[in-house]
Amino acid sequence: MSIVSILTDFGQRDNFVGVMKAVILKINPKAKIVDLCHNINPQDIQEGAFILKNSFRYFPKGTVHLVVVDPGVGSSRKKVLVKTQDYYFVAPDNGVLSPALCKEVIQGIVEITEEKYFLKPVSDTFHGRDIFAPVAAYLSLGRDIYDFGKRIKGIKPLDLSEPKRFKNKLIGEVIYIDHFGNLITNITKDEFRDFIGDSDFKICVKKHMINKISHSYQEANRNLPLAIFDSFGNLEISLAFLSAAKYLSLGKGTVVEVIKY
Amino acid sequence: MSIVSILTDFGQRDNFVGVMKAVILKINPKAKIVDLCHNINPQDIQEGAFILKNSFRYFPKGTVHLVVVDPGVGSSRKKVLVKTQDYYFVAPDNGVLSPALCKEVIQGIVEITEEKYFLKPVSDTFHGRDIFAPVAAYLSLGRDIYDFGKRIKGIKPLDLSEPKRFKNKLIGEVIYIDHFGNLITNITKDEFRDFIGDSDFKICVKKHMINKISHSYQEANRNLPLAIFDSFGNLEISLAFLSAAKYLSLGKGTVVEVIKY
Amino acid sequence: MSIVSILTDFGQRDNFVGVMKAVILKINPKAKIVDLCHNINPQDIQEGAFILKNSFRYFPKGTVHLVVVDPGVGSSRKKVLVKTQDYYFVAPDNGVLSPALCKEVIQGIVEITEEKYFLKPVSDTFHGRDIFAPVAAYLSLGRDIYDFGKRIKGIKPLDLSEPKRFKNKLIGEVIYIDHFGNLITNITKDEFRDFIGDSDFKICVKKHMINKISHSYQEANRNLPLAIFDSFGNLEISLAFLSAAKYLSLGKGTVVEVIKY
Repeated sequence: MSIVSILTDFGQRDNFVGVMKAVILKINPKAKIVDLCHNINPQDIQEGAFILKNSFRYFPKGTVHLVVVDPGVGSSRKKVLVKTQDYYFVAPDNGVLSPALCKEVIQGIVEITEEKYFLKPVSDTFHGRDIFAPVAAYLSLGRDIYDFGKRIKGIKPLDLSEPKRFKNKLIGEVIYIDHFGNLITNITKDEFRDFIGDSDFKICVKKHMINKISHSYQEANRNLPLAIFDSFGNLEISLAFLSAAKYLSLGKGTVVEVIKY
Repeated sequence: MSIVSILTDFGQRDNFVGVMKAVILKINPKAKIVDLCHNINPQDIQEGAFILKNSFRYFPKGTVHLVVVDPGVGSSRKKVLVKTQDYYFVAPDNGVLSPALCKEVIQGIVEITEEKYFLKPVSDTFHGRDIFAPVAAYLSLGRDIYDFGKRIKGIKPLDLSEPKRFKNKLIGEVIYIDHFGNLITNITKDEFRDFIGDSDFKICVKKHMINKISHSYQEANRNLPLAIFDSFGNLEISLAFLSAAKYLSLGKGTVVEVIKY
Repeated sequence: MSIVSILTDFGQRDNFVGVMKAVILKINPKAKIVDLCHNINPQDIQEGAFILKNSFRYFPKGTVHLVVVDPGVGSSRKKVLVKTQDYYFVAPDNGVLSPALCKEVIQGIVEITEEKYFLKPVSDTFHGRDIFAPVAAYLSLGRDIYDFGKRIKGIKPLDLSEPKRFKNKLIGEVIYIDHFGNLITNITKDEFRDFIGDSDFKICVKKHMINKISHSYQEANRNLPLAIFDSFGNLEISLAFLSAAKYLSLGKGTVVEVIKY
């Protein structure tokens, strides 16, 4: 198996992703490349980390996850690769891998320094092409992780925003807005259930109040927001057939309060 | 052959399509996945049906067409798979398959109910990942269609808007606007020719009047709209090198009249 | 090896690219298709040529580069294929291949005329699907280039805009704006170095003045533009963590002057 997933903030305007794929296929013509997502907000490490954490486990064992959200490209930030029980990860060491890896069994972390695997000359602005893509391609061929550099002890940590818990209140926030304009919060299904138990509750978002969890977008009134657990286990505020972000004028950072009685 | 085409309204903002591909490859590592289109207007079953109808026949025999335009996700709408002489189709039973299938030789229709093929737990909001992608993947491996549930007699119908024919008038409307801003109507080449025969004609769109069919965008004056048959056989109103939608301020639903003398 | 790269101005709104892939796979089920870029400005041959020139060499030997930026579709413009030492190119003969090929060893140029390879009926508006995709697919199967038509002597030339050199001034312009809002100029690293030598210099863009070349976006003050060589060797004007295009209100055609002392 030689699957390489690619997650970037490169968007789809340019040739950046296409050229990375070319570089991978030149090294491993049999690689199967999957676009995980290229529309992470430019340089938004938190958002890249959130999407990676939600997605990587759906891939087959042995997948190489190539992650390039890299505001520090050209600076002295490290380049790392991590081998877990099931996957490989290749990325700048800026925290973007940290939330995905925190519950994984780590088998090795390597600082990528072995220049013979890099495309030359290495540019100042596109290590995705010149360093990360070739390393991912060689990994997909089965190359040993210690061929690329020396073992290091850890990667840079990153704290994704977490909800705060009070006596009868759980206060979270909107951390992601999807294509449909759904407002994804940092409150997970597990945390919600643990907090609510058998109590009654209401969910407050600005002036809106919601007092149940829906199981289908069709349950809601067209004009009133509903609460639903999204497919990755986060509490989501939505409008039935419209963009909640647009029609409620809400964005990332909006406070969402769960109150129990 | 194990090609899976994917048609959705998921856009390219998120990890939705990438994760569906991961799920497919976990089941069938040899699947060849083709993005047919992911920018169907959110929840627009008519548009999804129109694109599928225009596209599916270009694929190799045996292709599994995975269609996820699914406003009723989580509700009681059925999930279906259809086998025709040449293809498989997997989709929510909301009409999105109907226009594509109306002239096809149907070999079997199955309501998808066999939960052992689903990803668990099945989410409320992403049956594309949890149900449709796994079923498509198993189909691409050659699994029998009756493994997934019981035979049913039909799928939900959907009427795509059709032009209306009067004595000397054929009245259609704009049903799709493409990337270039071309206005695609529901008047097909066959219907146009059958209606016009050897007569002279004019095509009226708001205050604009066109009296011939062009064969190249370069035939037209830069500032005047032209009529041309698009590559899928529909009458299209365009500006030579500009977006007709933008510069003529016209959108979906605009009436287009063909008048013969 | 049978890689087909696709470069178009089709955007990602429609089924155009998906259907081209279907056509290729119907002819060569083993083809490996790579999206190079589909967001060339509509009908912008210069931009397509610039992206192709920057990208094609990253692909493995034997890649078929399928380029469809084709404002003249349906008109009398020729359709060509070119074989170089390492690659094949298939495109309308409108200049889009010219900058990529000017330093390549050409082994043969063919005007594509052999209709038996085309999809029938050939539409007026989508030769990408009906002519170029099938020809690329047959080439990826190893078909001889002279099967598709007769040898011709040359392809249509295209002049990409070049910087102008004066005694102490090198005057270029912004020719491309990427996803991050970076302003890419037509001044190459080689030309810059050759012009500057050991002199001091300043780079002037409207009212902004920059007097060094940075090696990382992080070197700059958040509010001041920096100059950096982009990963394809062109001088780029950027803001550290913002879109230079947006926040400096600059676009394609903006004059960039390098002055030496």
